[in-house]
Amino acid sequence: MLKTFINTSKISTNRLVLRRLQSTYTIPTIQKGVTFYKNNGPLKYEDIAVPKPKPNELLINVKYSGVCHTDLHAWKGDWPLPVKFDPYLVGGHEGAGVVVAMGSEVKNWSIGDHAGIKWLQSSCMTCEACENSNESNCPDAVLSGYTHNGSFQQYATADAVQAARIPQETDLAEVAPILCAGVTVYKALKSANLKAGQWVAISGAAGGLGSLAVQYAKAMGYRVLGIDGGEGKQELFEKCGGEIYIDFTKEKNIVEAIKEATHGGAHGVINVSVSEQAISASTEYVRNNGTVVLVGLPAGAVCKSDVFSHVVKSISIVGSYVGNRADTREAIDFFSRGLVKSPIKIIGLSELPRAFMEMEQGKVLGRYVVDTAK
Amino acid sequence: MLKTFINTSKISTNRLVLRRLQSTYTIPTIQKGVTFYKNNGPLKYEDIAVPKPKPNELLINVKYSGVCHTDLHAWKGDWPLPVKFDPYLVGGHEGAGVVVAMGSEVKNWSIGDHAGIKWLQSSCMTCEACENSNESNCPDAVLSGYTHNGSFQQYATADAVQAARIPQETDLAEVAPILCAGVTVYKALKSANLKAGQWVAISGAAGGLGSLAVQYAKAMGYRVLGIDGGEGKQELFEKCGGEIYIDFTKEKNIVEAIKEATHGGAHGVINVSVSEQAISASTEYVRNNGTVVLVGLPAGAVCKSDVFSHVVKSISIVGSYVGNRADTREAIDFFSRGLVKSPIKIIGLSELPRAFMEMEQGKVLGRYVVDTAK
Amino acid sequence: MLKTFINTSKISTNRLVLRRLQSTYTIPTIQKGVTFYKNNGPLKYEDIAVPKPKPNELLINVKYSGVCHTDLHAWKGDWPLPVKFDPYLVGGHEGAGVVVAMGSEVKNWSIGDHAGIKWLQSSCMTCEACENSNESNCPDAVLSGYTHNGSFQQYATADAVQAARIPQETDLAEVAPILCAGVTVYKALKSANLKAGQWVAISGAAGGLGSLAVQYAKAMGYRVLGIDGGEGKQELFEKCGGEIYIDFTKEKNIVEAIKEATHGGAHGVINVSVSEQAISASTEYVRNNGTVVLVGLPAGAVCKSDVFSHVVKSISIVGSYVGNRADTREAIDFFSRGLVKSPIKIIGLSELPRAFMEMEQGKVLGRYVVDTAK
Amino acid sequence: MLKTFINTSKISTNRLVLRRLQSTYTIPTIQKGVTFYKNNGPLKYEDIAVPKPKPNELLINVKYSGVCHTDLHAWKGDWPLPVKFDPYLVGGHEGAGVVVAMGSEVKNWSIGDHAGIKWLQSSCMTCEACENSNESNCPDAVLSGYTHNGSFQQYATADAVQAARIPQETDLAEVAPILCAGVTVYKALKSANLKAGQWVAISGAAGGLGSLAVQYAKAMGYRVLGIDGGEGKQELFEKCGGEIYIDFTKEKNIVEAIKEATHGGAHGVINVSVSEQAISASTEYVRNNGTVVLVGLPAGAVCKSDVFSHVVKSISIVGSYVGNRADTREAIDFFSRGLVKSPIKIIGLSELPRAFMEMEQGKVLGRYVVDTAK
Repeated sequence: MLKTFINTSKISTNRLVLRRLQSTYTIPTIQKGVTFYKNNGPLKYEDIAVPKPKPNELLINVKYSGVCHTDLHAWKGDWPLPVKFDPYLVGGHEGAGVVVAMGSEVKNWSIGDHAGIKWLQSSCMTCEACENSNESNCPDAVLSGYTHNGSFQQYATADAVQAARIPQETDLAEVAPILCAGVTVYKALKSANLKAGQWVAISGAAGGLGSLAVQYAKAMGYRVLGIDGGEGKQELFEKCGGEIYIDFTKEKNIVEAIKEATHGGAHGVINVSVSEQAISASTEYVRNNGTVVLVGLPAGAVCKSDVFSHVVKSISIVGSYVGNRADTREAIDFFSRGLVKSPIKIIGLSELPRAFMEMEQGKVLGRYVVDTAK
Repeated sequence: MLKTFINTSKISTNRLVLRRLQSTYTIPTIQKGVTFYKNNGPLKYEDIAVPKPKPNELLINVKYSGVCHTDLHAWKGDWPLPVKFDPYLVGGHEGAGVVVAMGSEVKNWSIGDHAGIKWLQSSCMTCEACENSNESNCPDAVLSGYTHNGSFQQYATADAVQAARIPQETDLAEVAPILCAGVTVYKALKSANLKAGQWVAISGAAGGLGSLAVQYAKAMGYRVLGIDGGEGKQELFEKCGGEIYIDFTKEKNIVEAIKEATHGGAHGVINVSVSEQAISASTEYVRNNGTVVLVGLPAGAVCKSDVFSHVVKSISIVGSYVGNRADTREAIDFFSRGLVKSPIKIIGLSELPRAFMEMEQGKVLGRYVVDTAK
Repeated sequence: MLKTFINTSKISTNRLVLRRLQSTYTIPTIQKGVTFYKNNGPLKYEDIAVPKPKPNELLINVKYSGVCHTDLHAWKGDWPLPVKFDPYLVGGHEGAGVVVAMGSEVKNWSIGDHAGIKWLQSSCMTCEACENSNESNCPDAVLSGYTHNGSFQQYATADAVQAARIPQETDLAEVAPILCAGVTVYKALKSANLKAGQWVAISGAAGGLGSLAVQYAKAMGYRVLGIDGGEGKQELFEKCGGEIYIDFTKEKNIVEAIKEATHGGAHGVINVSVSEQAISASTEYVRNNGTVVLVGLPAGAVCKSDVFSHVVKSISIVGSYVGNRADTREAIDFFSRGLVKSPIKIIGLSELPRAFMEMEQGKVLGRYVVDTAK
Repeated sequence: MLKTFINTSKISTNRLVLRRLQSTYTIPTIQKGVTFYKNNGPLKYEDIAVPKPKPNELLINVKYSGVCHTDLHAWKGDWPLPVKFDPYLVGGHEGAGVVVAMGSEVKNWSIGDHAGIKWLQSSCMTCEACENSNESNCPDAVLSGYTHNGSFQQYATADAVQAARIPQETDLAEVAPILCAGVTVYKALKSANLKAGQWVAISGAAGGLGSLAVQYAKAMGYRVLGIDGGEGKQELFEKCGGEIYIDFTKEKNIVEAIKEATHGGAHGVINVSVSEQAISASTEYVRNNGTVVLVGLPAGAVCKSDVFSHVVKSISIVGSYVGNRADTREAIDFFSRGLVKSPIKIIGLSELPRAFMEMEQGKVLGRYVVDTAK
């Protein structure tokens, strides 16, 4: 299935060229969007008002938006963090489009620029987390598609400071998942604090996030060991640039196998997999003085490590959330330079409710991207 | 009891002066030491041979040695790491004394220098951990009083590279516990990766390690919050330079109390306390992007954190073992400059077996230091 | 002269209490300010319009403003960077006052909060420098008292993201110089990348910036060596917490004297002095692997180091400009906690033109602070 | 000429196989070596005694040794650091060979292991520099081919802690220059403190050190801009993986050209070129907050930067000497994995005196490696 996803690339490049011939923008007052009015309520593809940008905001004509598992959590309301309805919520936080209007205080943006909507819509910019460029850890963070209407609509507002800059020549459909999935794994890799030439293990290496992580890790000069199981996974892993593959359905002692393959353990581990058992194993196969990164968000899961060996091995277990402005720019840059491929399947925005149902049933392999024009 | 410990300082300074008048050293072939021939076997104060230094080693005339809980573990053999008998083992890894002989390859040491025996006797110096100054994480580490005869004897050998340098004017009895306890908490504080002016919470702030941690933290420019319980603890904590004290026997909601007192949580936490519950709480009251340090070694304990908040708060849980050569020199320097006090009670080496029994019964408050001359 | 400066502290605390009894603010349309209409043009204490805050801005009723050498450069126009007139320029970038109004998009500020105006009025927040919290290095940085009307007026606008937060109990007159001078030396100390217990040399230790640097260095746990010359300098240095003083008017070989005093050279050097010769010397007395920080801005000066020893000693020469939001908050926090004293002399705003003349003639010792009410 | 150098690879692999069939080693008492008895004295290819390893040393049967410009400096004695004669000196510090004997205290080495002799023969391991893994900055560093007989002989002694480990499958002739040239540029790149995806400029990109630097930079995930001049240089640069080439003989304004090509300046600069003018230019085209690395050692040269822009741009100028144990292992690992090619020309040890003359006349392109068997 992933292969068919990849082939959309050429087509969308053509679409991009057509789009850039338009030089002025007429902004409608009514648009199409997918809404819901309460958690688990019906998902409606309906006419809604086009929002107006505040002085600090861009109005972005969203062309494409990736569909992420977090969107499902927002709809179901099963995370400790409550969503906001006014009176409805529009989900989506992987939107790529064109700036068509902007508020009076916006700096360094022009009409026609390509821009991305990401999970962090805005933050206070004045707290200790914000001061240190950790805006995603701001207690007053506003979240796209969660506490602010997101990218499952044709026109959405984005804080100009946090909006992602997308080069004009970058495909808007393919870059969409980079805005959340790509940035997240890239940030996790940075959090592992590795040097080029060191070993990073990706637990869940052949899934959606995992295969992006493998490609970023490779581009960053790391040696990549992947852990996953199931048919076709090893091929995908190796195609992404992975060096050593461990199949957890076949390997009896994963910890020892990884230690042997890496001559002493991985210097860093990225836990894309959300299994508690996999996380605990990663604290064992990480090398002395190495770093285990937690990045997946399994509801209610607990990270466990043996205190004695945690201390004697002097390892670190680090939580990595979503990227900041620099992480976002960098992750897009790796993608735009062709070092990372993002396999997607484009569907119409009107088909989003059906896609949610498929996701809930675990039927989706790869990443759906909605075309807001359909 | 701690107060009486402190008053020994002046007396031992006088002893020091006398000692330095001797300018040559006659090395006997037989000496006094405390030995045991198997785990839990009898502790004997007996005549044993004076060891000969290898080409890389110093022979140190141990004057004083601290008595640490690890010595009890070595004797009992209840840690995952086996001890070595040849045919006996001499414990002790906080020895302070005078260099009386040295091997042919020793560099930068002179006869008469004051030197310390610490937990890490030697390491391979060629593995990845050693290359990066993490010698305590070397898989081939040799441990004083555990796999190499330690400081509970009058003459002990120490690898010249790892032996600690002690300034001539530093009291040899008082500095003894710094060689392990002091270095360990100092290293833990460094592992918390804090900036001057930030909040560090010490869990177990008024115990032996804790009160040293409070003093080091203060000298490093941190603001110190201490957590402990029991009579007289708050006074001791404040005397050591602590700023805010939380009594866990009185405070109902420790997590909220700490967050409020520090305006958002401690930037770093040093878990000297070995309670699993206290460790888990520390992952909650640490600030976003902060660091929880594990340093105590409770047998069989598990460190648990909630994955969701570990990620969303982007915290780190870091294991800190014992210090390296630089940590040791720095920890001794803070002590020698008078910024850290080390309360001790001096007893004779011949009384060590009795002290072990007291420690096992949990009767010891503060730190015993044995005088090898008695 | 410095001694008389210090005694103002108690008086201004009383003024503060009176001020806080007012709970609403009437904002006039006309105010007093000191203006100039071209470089080197007359400095006029005159009636000017009260500015209106933009959506992102605070309107601050400036109570006190420090007078800095940079203000003189702005007036003279002798820096490579041109100032802006519209049609006049109001100087000043060390303003402390009270928030009396704010724009629609301001977050996390309340009317009545105490706020500081600093050199960096605002930046684009979207470039690579801004993304990484290096806003002062933003190519579009707007500068208070230079390209934006500053704090030599009773009411000034400040970008809400960059404005400094001042605790209510902190004296507004004394904190004024911290907003530029204090933050600058604090940032320089951070740029030296030192550990507590290491040696920092302050070149120009007894001047205005130097004496602040000594105090911050002490509070950060460093050992401080100061270099300066002239009567009363050593006493001031030692009062500020300095440990070793080198008088360059008496010491023949400064480099050797510093190396000996610090047992191998300073781990870090802060060049507050703007002498080329002093900077070159600092590259010699810095320790192997140490850091020389440049912070003063002598027009046209060149930093020179011998390539051979720069490489063999593996030293770093680092430029440190002004602090960012976090540096500012931290520098104010050290001051508010009483760890740093800021000696000032309060004069009326109307007296500012005279103060400029005195500064130009090099007659000012310590820091002038203008009271905008006079 | 470089092309012919590269083709030696297959041949030497065959030689390697033959060599490993020998399993015991007969160590002669007399060997061939190239000696000189005073600076600028005659270089003699003569019979000399085989040295005996001390307790901490390996005896290495040197198979190949690279010839470096530093060897010429040692012979001429034109560096501030004096060489040692006893009564002669054997130069060479890029020796690759086989361990044939070892002292009593050597750990973790076996007879038959492949080992490398590098510039740093040994250090004290107890000073502050050594403690922090900066052994090359040790004041008591012993230098191969400079203060200790080096690798221009068939049998040489090397401190076991500092000797480089070479994988058995790595070609001993080609790896020789990696032991100094490779490690040095790799260390310089690490000193630039860059993230994958950032721009590094290599000044002198197509020379011997430069072309290694380009390849390491590429393997570390950096984007590489090279500056050089002359025929065939751009082709070589691009073959090594460089992205943008600036020909200083054609480009009028190098500073502006580099700023434009990198959209704001290089994040890091490696000054392999030893021109003072090129070093000064690098302080201008480096990006704000970026790092200029000095690594070449031109006798008597001065590094100059404009203080104003050094501060306002907040750049760092960092000296990088030779690598430590970890740098060495890592640099060899990149080479052994085939990510870096080292073009060499093999000659006999007996031809070394002639090679020195050619080097002095500036006739050597690429790297000579001597075969000690000839």
